[in-house]
Amino acid sequence: MTEFSNRQYFLASRPEGMPTTEHVQCRDVPLGEPAEGQVIIRNLYISLDPAIRGWMSDAPNYIEPIAIGDAVRSSVLGRVVSSNHPDFEVGDVGMAMGAWEQYTTLPGEALNKLDENLGIPLSLFLGVLGPTGLTAYFGLLEVGQPKAGETVLVSAAAGAVGSVVGQIAKMQGCRVVGMAGSDDKCDWLTGELGFDAAINYKTCGDYQAAIRQACPGGVDVYFDNVGGEILDATLTCLNKYARVAVCGWISTYNAAEIPRLDNLWQVVAESLTIRGFTVLDYLDRFEEGVTQLAEWMMAGKIKYREDIVDGLDNVLPTFLRLFDGSNAGKLVLRLPE
Amino acid sequence: MTEFSNRQYFLASRPEGMPTTEHVQCRDVPLGEPAEGQVIIRNLYISLDPAIRGWMSDAPNYIEPIAIGDAVRSSVLGRVVSSNHPDFEVGDVGMAMGAWEQYTTLPGEALNKLDENLGIPLSLFLGVLGPTGLTAYFGLLEVGQPKAGETVLVSAAAGAVGSVVGQIAKMQGCRVVGMAGSDDKCDWLTGELGFDAAINYKTCGDYQAAIRQACPGGVDVYFDNVGGEILDATLTCLNKYARVAVCGWISTYNAAEIPRLDNLWQVVAESLTIRGFTVLDYLDRFEEGVTQLAEWMMAGKIKYREDIVDGLDNVLPTFLRLFDGSNAGKLVLRLPE
Repeated sequence: MTEFSNRQYFLASRPEGMPTTEHVQCRDVPLGEPAEGQVIIRNLYISLDPAIRGWMSDAPNYIEPIAIGDAVRSSVLGRVVSSNHPDFEVGDVGMAMGAWEQYTTLPGEALNKLDENLGIPLSLFLGVLGPTGLTAYFGLLEVGQPKAGETVLVSAAAGAVGSVVGQIAKMQGCRVVGMAGSDDKCDWLTGELGFDAAINYKTCGDYQAAIRQACPGGVDVYFDNVGGEILDATLTCLNKYARVAVCGWISTYNAAEIPRLDNLWQVVAESLTIRGFTVLDYLDRFEEGVTQLAEWMMAGKIKYREDIVDGLDNVLPTFLRLFDGSNAGKLVLRLPE
Repeated sequence: MTEFSNRQYFLASRPEGMPTTEHVQCRDVPLGEPAEGQVIIRNLYISLDPAIRGWMSDAPNYIEPIAIGDAVRSSVLGRVVSSNHPDFEVGDVGMAMGAWEQYTTLPGEALNKLDENLGIPLSLFLGVLGPTGLTAYFGLLEVGQPKAGETVLVSAAAGAVGSVVGQIAKMQGCRVVGMAGSDDKCDWLTGELGFDAAINYKTCGDYQAAIRQACPGGVDVYFDNVGGEILDATLTCLNKYARVAVCGWISTYNAAEIPRLDNLWQVVAESLTIRGFTVLDYLDRFEEGVTQLAEWMMAGKIKYREDIVDGLDNVLPTFLRLFDGSNAGKLVLRLPE
């Protein structure tokens, strides 16, 4: 095998606020041969998700932090270019936890083979049919436990996870209200995805008043992607026995300290449940989730948006768009085949 | 009927910190006749519980705040001295939500009749066989959901609720660790109640280190009576999928603002559940709870301490002992028959 070079973006130091080119740097390393049981994939798509910012920090997290000097961890989808594992042949396509790099070398067991012949665009396996769709599915149904007639509030509702959460909640017979960062996004939620109302959190002013107005019967399930001030305001709008499904706190990832929650006392006052989760908690039910999501998608019951950006060298500025909300839908980086 | 006078302690103004005689004042009011459907009880025992401090505030709470000018709300146990309700005769004994007063007038439906002939000291119906025991029972079993082999940490463990929580957790096959505010209390927990370890939070220094040492396998259920810094420290010691049963946050009741929880991020990192509750959430299962608690008590499986103080005029200073931890067990005020 010819000696290939592998371009990587690696963690040079831990960011305190937004990661910059000081923290995430580029290098080209030689690509070796796969060891016994390993395969090498050429990455076709790299998934850019808010959680990655958490892994750059060494604060306690649900998986190990990215080690200094390691390529930045990310879900990837790629094509096998070299295999030393009996289950994989060159040309197979699979998904794995990889990194911001051209090629990922990994044990065959860590690669989930995908069927290219289903007529499903491959990138969707990183989005609506992948970790983000599954996060929405299990987070809403298992953690949020919405019942017909209840009101579900979703923050970052136009995002990859939130948009799916809202559509599943509608299918459960709930009133669904989304919060998003532009009028365009809000229009998409109510006009195309069937949300009952949407709040532009950048222009609404008083969060509490806006939530109360959009949720006159109070909130029974809050699917929380953002944390911080919006969570604090929502706490005062929750009904007795309401559930807060904590998917992540994107508003705090680049903050020096977690903001105070002045209204946490509501936990006792209203017998609230605040429950964190990650999609990995439901690993043994992924097949059920993907099957259901694919069925809904094929039936047109789940619509989605992808925001696909070309070129590995755009990875860092593209990633940062997650934090100013300028992405529209699931953010994916595409690499040439 | 002779005109009786009823001594009351009423809420004159809302305290910001500890309530004083400025906020809680004494008055004697005439006692009228019971209206149709009402009874009047002469209070024998008045239950003093941390929650009452919450009701003095007009912050959102699980029941209405005490109105300015109203007698301070409290669970009471009394004997019927006048009845205008077919189900009650003079001499009957019952429990109700009453107030810091000699006589309470209330609808018969609001009075739970008790059987004096069971050989159970009446005061226990305000404690281990009443709201505090039921809080421990439902809070631990339903909210905490401990499994055999898990570690249960209890704060305010020598208190009326915490001491019962720990003993029930032991019966579930758990390792049980209590936090309390004196060595005497800690000795009582480990020496008499069967706790596996106890932490004197006033002398242990670093909470996190003390909890880790007492709970080498981490904490699976934290029964939280106190909130604040101890909750924040405990958050870092919780195992994946741990449950925090939030009974109340006594450390914050007299504080101007709720302290920051810097470690709340653990909710996502460890897929934690933080769930608030009050005993009223389980109103329809009280009979089950009391029956089970009485059985355990009779069998010597639940031990308890009562701290009984005589005289209505001692009510405020006695109540304040809850907040410096100088009470030993369930705090009850006794009034002369």
